[in-house]
Amino acid sequence: MIVDTYKTLREEAYEANLEIKKQNLAIYTWGNASAFDPDKAVFAIKPSGLPYDELTPESMVIVDLEGKTVYGNLKPSSDTKTHQVLYREFTGIKGIAHTHSPYAVAWAQAKKPVPVFGTTHADHGTEEIPCTDFIGSEEVKNDYELETGKLIAGTFKKRNLNFTHISMVLVAGHGPFAWGQSAAQSVYNAAVLEEICKMALLTLRVDPETKPLPEYIIAKHWERKHGQNAYYGQK
Amino acid sequence: MIVDTYKTLREEAYEANLEIKKQNLAIYTWGNASAFDPDKAVFAIKPSGLPYDELTPESMVIVDLEGKTVYGNLKPSSDTKTHQVLYREFTGIKGIAHTHSPYAVAWAQAKKPVPVFGTTHADHGTEEIPCTDFIGSEEVKNDYELETGKLIAGTFKKRNLNFTHISMVLVAGHGPFAWGQSAAQSVYNAAVLEEICKMALLTLRVDPETKPLPEYIIAKHWERKHGQNAYYGQK
Amino acid sequence: MIVDTYKTLREEAYEANLEIKKQNLAIYTWGNASAFDPDKAVFAIKPSGLPYDELTPESMVIVDLEGKTVYGNLKPSSDTKTHQVLYREFTGIKGIAHTHSPYAVAWAQAKKPVPVFGTTHADHGTEEIPCTDFIGSEEVKNDYELETGKLIAGTFKKRNLNFTHISMVLVAGHGPFAWGQSAAQSVYNAAVLEEICKMALLTLRVDPETKPLPEYIIAKHWERKHGQNAYYGQK
Amino acid sequence: MIVDTYKTLREEAYEANLEIKKQNLAIYTWGNASAFDPDKAVFAIKPSGLPYDELTPESMVIVDLEGKTVYGNLKPSSDTKTHQVLYREFTGIKGIAHTHSPYAVAWAQAKKPVPVFGTTHADHGTEEIPCTDFIGSEEVKNDYELETGKLIAGTFKKRNLNFTHISMVLVAGHGPFAWGQSAAQSVYNAAVLEEICKMALLTLRVDPETKPLPEYIIAKHWERKHGQNAYYGQK
Repeated sequence: MIVDTYKTLREEAYEANLEIKKQNLAIYTWGNASAFDPDKAVFAIKPSGLPYDELTPESMVIVDLEGKTVYGNLKPSSDTKTHQVLYREFTGIKGIAHTHSPYAVAWAQAKKPVPVFGTTHADHGTEEIPCTDFIGSEEVKNDYELETGKLIAGTFKKRNLNFTHISMVLVAGHGPFAWGQSAAQSVYNAAVLEEICKMALLTLRVDPETKPLPEYIIAKHWERKHGQNAYYGQK
Repeated sequence: MIVDTYKTLREEAYEANLEIKKQNLAIYTWGNASAFDPDKAVFAIKPSGLPYDELTPESMVIVDLEGKTVYGNLKPSSDTKTHQVLYREFTGIKGIAHTHSPYAVAWAQAKKPVPVFGTTHADHGTEEIPCTDFIGSEEVKNDYELETGKLIAGTFKKRNLNFTHISMVLVAGHGPFAWGQSAAQSVYNAAVLEEICKMALLTLRVDPETKPLPEYIIAKHWERKHGQNAYYGQK
Repeated sequence: MIVDTYKTLREEAYEANLEIKKQNLAIYTWGNASAFDPDKAVFAIKPSGLPYDELTPESMVIVDLEGKTVYGNLKPSSDTKTHQVLYREFTGIKGIAHTHSPYAVAWAQAKKPVPVFGTTHADHGTEEIPCTDFIGSEEVKNDYELETGKLIAGTFKKRNLNFTHISMVLVAGHGPFAWGQSAAQSVYNAAVLEEICKMALLTLRVDPETKPLPEYIIAKHWERKHGQNAYYGQK
Repeated sequence: MIVDTYKTLREEAYEANLEIKKQNLAIYTWGNASAFDPDKAVFAIKPSGLPYDELTPESMVIVDLEGKTVYGNLKPSSDTKTHQVLYREFTGIKGIAHTHSPYAVAWAQAKKPVPVFGTTHADHGTEEIPCTDFIGSEEVKNDYELETGKLIAGTFKKRNLNFTHISMVLVAGHGPFAWGQSAAQSVYNAAVLEEICKMALLTLRVDPETKPLPEYIIAKHWERKHGQNAYYGQK
């Protein structure tokens, strides 16, 4: 039965979307999260324009990597093609979250990458959080949401960034996207991004001349959480 | 029975007023929302000075477009005449919300329009959010709240703004008014306005030289949500 | 029975103290509110150092205008003498609230009066919110809390301010005091003060050169709420 | 029975860790608190990487002053050695809290001590809140968390600071640590630190030239709460 086939994936996407609301990362219908199943090459995503409190696991839409809806009666999120491109380009990720959280949006609107000012950042990424260029006018005319995905992937390629070391990005003039090993982790990363953006902005209010954290501290914090000899957590 | 005639309208206004509180757009008795019935040419509005938790659907006051109370025992909001003018001038709107949300008030007090810094703004309006001039001393002496309505309508006329493309305004030194296709949508727009004002202020804290979003991105975001070929949501 | 004599007053003070917590005007044990009975010339005040969730109506301490505890087993708030002086100096007030709300404290620490930037302020006071000088070293040695009361009253006298038109003050380097026709109203005014201080700070972030509201708008907003022909509310 | 031996200590640590969450001093698994028993020379601390809502009193890990786990099946917090050093160096303290609260982190990331701008600060410490230097690269290679403890203790020695008069510190580029007479008091101090850091940042936004509070007011506020003739509270 096809329904049962996607049941777990839909539930994972549903829980992740609720978490966007719970973590105050978007108001009303804004934002969306998806969960990817690499074996079936499909992802479950929030339906377009529905308020979070009207969502159910059943309302999640199943879309394949060509952008075709393979299960569900509702239209998928208007940002679906951005998710689709990222699942194709960033091989191995299993969840994506897009929010309109205000501090992350502020950095995106100012078109500024977020420097690594402290260990909170270094615990989650070894480099500054990149901000893309504005999407071009041809790309907007062509296929806006698909091109947004390409813009993100292109930014990582051009700047030689590793999407497993920095699982967050700011799309200039728009807002944040985050990803991870699961839909839940992608929302976690979106919440971390908002907190890092808030801390970075407050840091510059205390001292506009603040310098980034020394490299050896960045490396240490990353390694103790994510390196080969990581000793954070119960693993 | 006259009570039943306005029952739905009063309930709509009641729910919208509660939403002002729920969305943290005003403290105590501040702020008010109204719901308009174009067929009957009357609107239901919050009674003056009552705390939100003492409101009931029955306490909403029904006022006609001459400002006359046609149903209800309480005095309507002191801002009633501003609503009255806007319903006359902005033909087609069916709800108005006035709040004292702090970021919108900050821009209003600074007498600055809010630039379109990002897609969150463009999703809800194609131009900067206008700020009126200070109301004149003659207008204050004459009929303050009525003249506030005229000031808003006049600002839109003078600047050739379309009130269906920008359904929000800042009254200089005072605060925000928003409107929409229903009372609920007017409160939604008031919440969006607060979020946009917060994001814009934070953006300028990241970079005071931030430039507005390119026109082609503004147009795209407006079109995908509100244009003829809109594809956002389930419609 | 002496217990019953002060029952209502203690309950009024108790409710006002809980409201300080509910309105997020102080954390932990910080802040205090009192309720004054002019006929008995006593006030009920929070006991010193008790967390808000341990308070009961019975725990409120009754103090007379000489500072003597006339009822209650607990020590009254360490700020009791400040309240005592204000009840003596500001004849007619029936409630006082002292908080450590962060935006009001910020203005107090910066030793800056809060300009009338908008109608939110004008609805509650016709002039800028005054900030005292630092209390003198002799006054600190003499009787700190009593002298704090004198400092507030002296600031109003020296600047020819009317304590019924401006029912709030910032004590330099310390924080806000507010008063009113009841303990409840004093806490309301403390919450208004925090909101005004937040709005004023944000306003200066939008434009550091912001000028105060024109006098005729200030006068209008005060008059419509508090003047002889006030028409705000249901009175 | 060894379980009962540490029961109270584990419960104290458990409650303190929950309070970190309740006071919004950290999101997700960030932050940790411990409770020290000087007689047994052991402390109970949060297990590494567990979300606050999965904690139980039983999950707290008991560690001795050599860093050895003496009771518990889980790995203790990755910051355990920092706690261990502080319990050895700051004789008499019985609780430590480490958080990632955003305003305290902002000052730590900007590497700035927090000046005594007001009585809220003076009520809890007589001097500015110190910020350490960046930890050195040799120390990071050697034993990062142990060296972080030494860095804190060394900062207090070098600057001749009294850890009972200032029970809070900012570790440069990282964040805050606070301590006290109990685990509960250490979390209280961490919350106070966040509030002081927020107030100080807002103060500088009102006036960047703000000067610290005069010494005689600082001394008075400290004395009335903590001096020999303290009269704050019910003691």
